[in-house]
Amino acid sequence: MNSKFIIAVDAMGGENSPKKIIDGIINFSKNKNDIFFKIFGNKKIIEKNLSSSLKKESFQIIHTEDFVKDEDSALMGAKNKKTSMWLAVESVKNKESDIIISAGNTGALFVIAKLNLEMIEKIEKPALSGLWPNKNGMNVVLDLGANIECSEKNLIDFSIMGTSLFKALFPNEEPKVALLNIGSEASKGNEIIKNTYNKLSSSSKNINFKGYVEGNNIMSGDVNVIVTDGFTGNIALKTAEGTSNFITTELKKILTSNFMGKLSTFINMQNFKLFRDKLDPRKYNGAILIGLKSPVVKSHGSTDSIGFSNSLSVCEKILKGKLIEKIKENID
Amino acid sequence: MNSKFIIAVDAMGGENSPKKIIDGIINFSKNKNDIFFKIFGNKKIIEKNLSSSLKKESFQIIHTEDFVKDEDSALMGAKNKKTSMWLAVESVKNKESDIIISAGNTGALFVIAKLNLEMIEKIEKPALSGLWPNKNGMNVVLDLGANIECSEKNLIDFSIMGTSLFKALFPNEEPKVALLNIGSEASKGNEIIKNTYNKLSSSSKNINFKGYVEGNNIMSGDVNVIVTDGFTGNIALKTAEGTSNFITTELKKILTSNFMGKLSTFINMQNFKLFRDKLDPRKYNGAILIGLKSPVVKSHGSTDSIGFSNSLSVCEKILKGKLIEKIKENID
Repeated sequence: MNSKFIIAVDAMGGENSPKKIIDGIINFSKNKNDIFFKIFGNKKIIEKNLSSSLKKESFQIIHTEDFVKDEDSALMGAKNKKTSMWLAVESVKNKESDIIISAGNTGALFVIAKLNLEMIEKIEKPALSGLWPNKNGMNVVLDLGANIECSEKNLIDFSIMGTSLFKALFPNEEPKVALLNIGSEASKGNEIIKNTYNKLSSSSKNINFKGYVEGNNIMSGDVNVIVTDGFTGNIALKTAEGTSNFITTELKKILTSNFMGKLSTFINMQNFKLFRDKLDPRKYNGAILIGLKSPVVKSHGSTDSIGFSNSLSVCEKILKGKLIEKIKENID
Repeated sequence: MNSKFIIAVDAMGGENSPKKIIDGIINFSKNKNDIFFKIFGNKKIIEKNLSSSLKKESFQIIHTEDFVKDEDSALMGAKNKKTSMWLAVESVKNKESDIIISAGNTGALFVIAKLNLEMIEKIEKPALSGLWPNKNGMNVVLDLGANIECSEKNLIDFSIMGTSLFKALFPNEEPKVALLNIGSEASKGNEIIKNTYNKLSSSSKNINFKGYVEGNNIMSGDVNVIVTDGFTGNIALKTAEGTSNFITTELKKILTSNFMGKLSTFINMQNFKLFRDKLDPRKYNGAILIGLKSPVVKSHGSTDSIGFSNSLSVCEKILKGKLIEKIKENID
């Protein structure tokens, strides 16, 4: 058991849990022999959802009756030290697990993580990073909302952490870092961004810095590690989500508004499915809080078992890609 | 002539000018008898593009050889006081025109406008506002990039100016103001946003304040006057543009990737055209710099004559809707 990577899973958070969590584990763990799951939550309910396809030697249930409610405030959710979320984080703290994943209350998860896990030396603030599709593949974008205000040092740390995460997730691709800004010229933006630009441009660090990227080029694929403060990153991410929803809803409404439309959409169903698949948010499921000595993966609360399974795949890549070691090597 | 509204048109800015400018004027002025155009630019080239459908009594050409180049820096573009842009702004300053429109160099236009036109009393900063579609119609969003950093007073001014602009453009709809933020609870956001929220919530001003809006709800249609600082607004706008481009490009690629796809897309062409029309950026063309004693309308440099014509329609609505008077009434 000890030569396996151990994922601590909070089974009780998010919609339709623990069913989707267990289904996600079952789906993910097909043909995996090197991952062990410590599953935290109500043993009785979890066992009801288990199937024989999950091998007995690949998991362990740690029973607790308590769990953090989705509607709890972050601090309220972090008060009870017997919740499945707290115990899962604690098992990483005690080095009994290698990484923690939850689909539960985001605020509580981050507070519990920060209370239990130390920061990586010389990193001042953890950042919430996520995956965002681009024309050629995938971006890592950070910070998506952990820090409303960021200093130059924070943004430089994010560049290093984002580069390390990108390398762990996509080992065959070259990370290209850019600062999200309102123009592409060096003179654009606020003082913090300009100073960060200057420091990154002259840095000898292991950062492949490409300058600024504007909002309309996040998905162009020219860069793939996009660094920003948590306020701006959160606005950008949610605006993209809203735009995507708006367009696909309008498209569906208009394309099927009459008989010919319905007919041709039916004929083209296979391609529409490909299109839907390309934009499927379950593919990008899993935000990663990095900066702590163990990464914390937050699956979207409303995702399903496929989405949760994809987040488990992010956990696996982070562990096998030695994310934390990569960050430590590059920070100074 | 003097009972007409007078629009000062810089004919020399943007791609394919002055042709698209003149075509835009011709297209817009069909059946309009109460608008007069002062057209600034190279008389010879402008006259070449004129057609008899533009009535002689509805325009005047003010000749100048000089014009601001698109690639000039803002300050460089504002140095020459004989450019078509400068002269057009000056004609508003001298009360010979009521509003100025240009498809030229944005930075230069704003510098020239600020040099020539006074601010409305008690407004500290002008804001760049734009139109942004939502599920039920259209949003006014400001600031889209004129001010990187904004105080509470600025954001409150923007709320008043945005409300006034919305009323001028959509007189039959109710303006609903919201602050763009990273959460919907009162406790979310930075200090400036929280203080602005508190002041707007308890304000007796003529602002229909609805609280915060997150990026994913900009297009939901629940609110329609969206207030933010110029950095955040610019990032949000461009991220939406980039997302929209990404999705429509992917859609086109996938839906026509095989014979059945091409066939069904052909069958459904009418509906695809409706969809394209719904998202047509020419409909939202025209950013408006408000806060000066005369509004300044900036048409997108790359738009065509239809887009420019739509910007002229924005000018008309601003004048007939008495935008500046509305702002003055509501500011304190």
